[in-house]
Amino acid sequence: MKLATLHTARGPRVVAMTDDDRHVDLNLVDSSLPTSLRALLALEGGLTRAAAALANAPDEAVAEGKLLAPIPDPGKVICIGLNYRDHAEETNSPIPSEPVVFGKFGNTIRGPEATVTLPAVSEQVDYEAELVVVIGRTGKNVAEADAMNHVAGYMNGNDVSARDWQKGRPGEQWLLGKTPDGFAPTGPFLLSADEAGDPHDWPVKLELNGRTMQDGSTADFLFTLPQIVAHLTKIMTLEPGDLIFTGTPAGVGAARKPPAWITDGSETAVTIGPLGTLRTRFVAE
Amino acid sequence: MKLATLHTARGPRVVAMTDDDRHVDLNLVDSSLPTSLRALLALEGGLTRAAAALANAPDEAVAEGKLLAPIPDPGKVICIGLNYRDHAEETNSPIPSEPVVFGKFGNTIRGPEATVTLPAVSEQVDYEAELVVVIGRTGKNVAEADAMNHVAGYMNGNDVSARDWQKGRPGEQWLLGKTPDGFAPTGPFLLSADEAGDPHDWPVKLELNGRTMQDGSTADFLFTLPQIVAHLTKIMTLEPGDLIFTGTPAGVGAARKPPAWITDGSETAVTIGPLGTLRTRFVAE
Repeated sequence: MKLATLHTARGPRVVAMTDDDRHVDLNLVDSSLPTSLRALLALEGGLTRAAAALANAPDEAVAEGKLLAPIPDPGKVICIGLNYRDHAEETNSPIPSEPVVFGKFGNTIRGPEATVTLPAVSEQVDYEAELVVVIGRTGKNVAEADAMNHVAGYMNGNDVSARDWQKGRPGEQWLLGKTPDGFAPTGPFLLSADEAGDPHDWPVKLELNGRTMQDGSTADFLFTLPQIVAHLTKIMTLEPGDLIFTGTPAGVGAARKPPAWITDGSETAVTIGPLGTLRTRFVAE
Repeated sequence: MKLATLHTARGPRVVAMTDDDRHVDLNLVDSSLPTSLRALLALEGGLTRAAAALANAPDEAVAEGKLLAPIPDPGKVICIGLNYRDHAEETNSPIPSEPVVFGKFGNTIRGPEATVTLPAVSEQVDYEAELVVVIGRTGKNVAEADAMNHVAGYMNGNDVSARDWQKGRPGEQWLLGKTPDGFAPTGPFLLSADEAGDPHDWPVKLELNGRTMQDGSTADFLFTLPQIVAHLTKIMTLEPGDLIFTGTPAGVGAARKPPAWITDGSETAVTIGPLGTLRTRFVAE
């Protein structure tokens, strides 16, 4: 099932997509279902009930509107760094012996077809195509063997990064370079795990202004999704709607000679496996 | 005005404290006021209306219950590192030329008198007494001269830190050491800025099991609150209810010989200026 969030006259609504790409407002079919995707994921049996609602949807439940981020309000935006060998090598970073973990705040979330404003203080804004995992079940100290049961589904993501704020600053913390407003576009939809197949063998592509810049595969992860979920939950409880950006393959703008930065008018397109294409436009502040 | 959040039979409720330390449920006095402190801060004129409600409160509006974190659901938990010269020196860190910024996730938030579970994977859990700034007005690119108009008030905070996950790991990102469940106790109340006086001249004290471990002053900030707000808002929009932990003075456990770690049964008490005392108890996982 493909789930998304639509901006409608009734506010943001969780929708499921039909085979012919129409959007069914699940709460209009079954008023006991929540109107937010995060709340739907938190509901025991929520996805099963959503599938039943989609199967029984009358025409009146089809909604129109602009797509927002599938999860507009995640509790956590967790990011894994250096999770592909070729990207670690292109940034002259050691191959990590355990997942490198950093974060973004919720101000970064944007949906498909969004326009992101580039902060005036950065001249080195870069793209990073990333598979985003959406958590569906609360967990702490999750074993690797059980980890995939905590995954609700997958989305395209772009871990946009201001390199001149990520590196070379006192304390060497990446946060400010990673958390400018709008620097985490996701979507266009969440593909539920039951229909996704194996997410460890998907092509990961990014185009900048129509030119292919990244062309990798999740088969090259240094740390698999079970390893990442097990590692994170040694420290923190994961909750439904939490996002995990799983790292980017080689080809980022900072590693090119000359560098290829995102500038006023740039457009990026992220296409990962069966997750559709996430397009983002950038404009100067 | 002292504002807090109380766990009541009606759910979490924002309360104002009377001079004799009773808690007035503001929404019971004025049903047009929100029930959450974050929403109250976001409401134009909200604090003025809260003060009027407190002044006119009938006895029936006094609520009983356990104190939660004043802001149980902050949109961001932003932290400033190395903001006191003596703490930078005791950790052998260079004096930063601009604020060092890192973050925690919302799973860290706890209220006063909370019991925090120590993660089994850490053997080096440390305390950090910190003045916490609560944002009251939305802002991006805020000028230093205007910054204090964006501050709603102040709380005690403890930036609890698992040193063996903060440092010495691949990538050198502090996040995992800073964001274990419960590692950001705050409270017991938010003191509104209009009654707080100058927050740049407050004693900052921490006791571990009754022994004074930190005894500094916010007069020793390397970066003032206006400088911090101006710096952050070059990158991100600050919103009502966002928290800024402003760094800790010397005396942390990691810098002592021998180190003084928080262990099963430890208790910390943070007392900053007029903000009361924040007590936290720790137990093994």
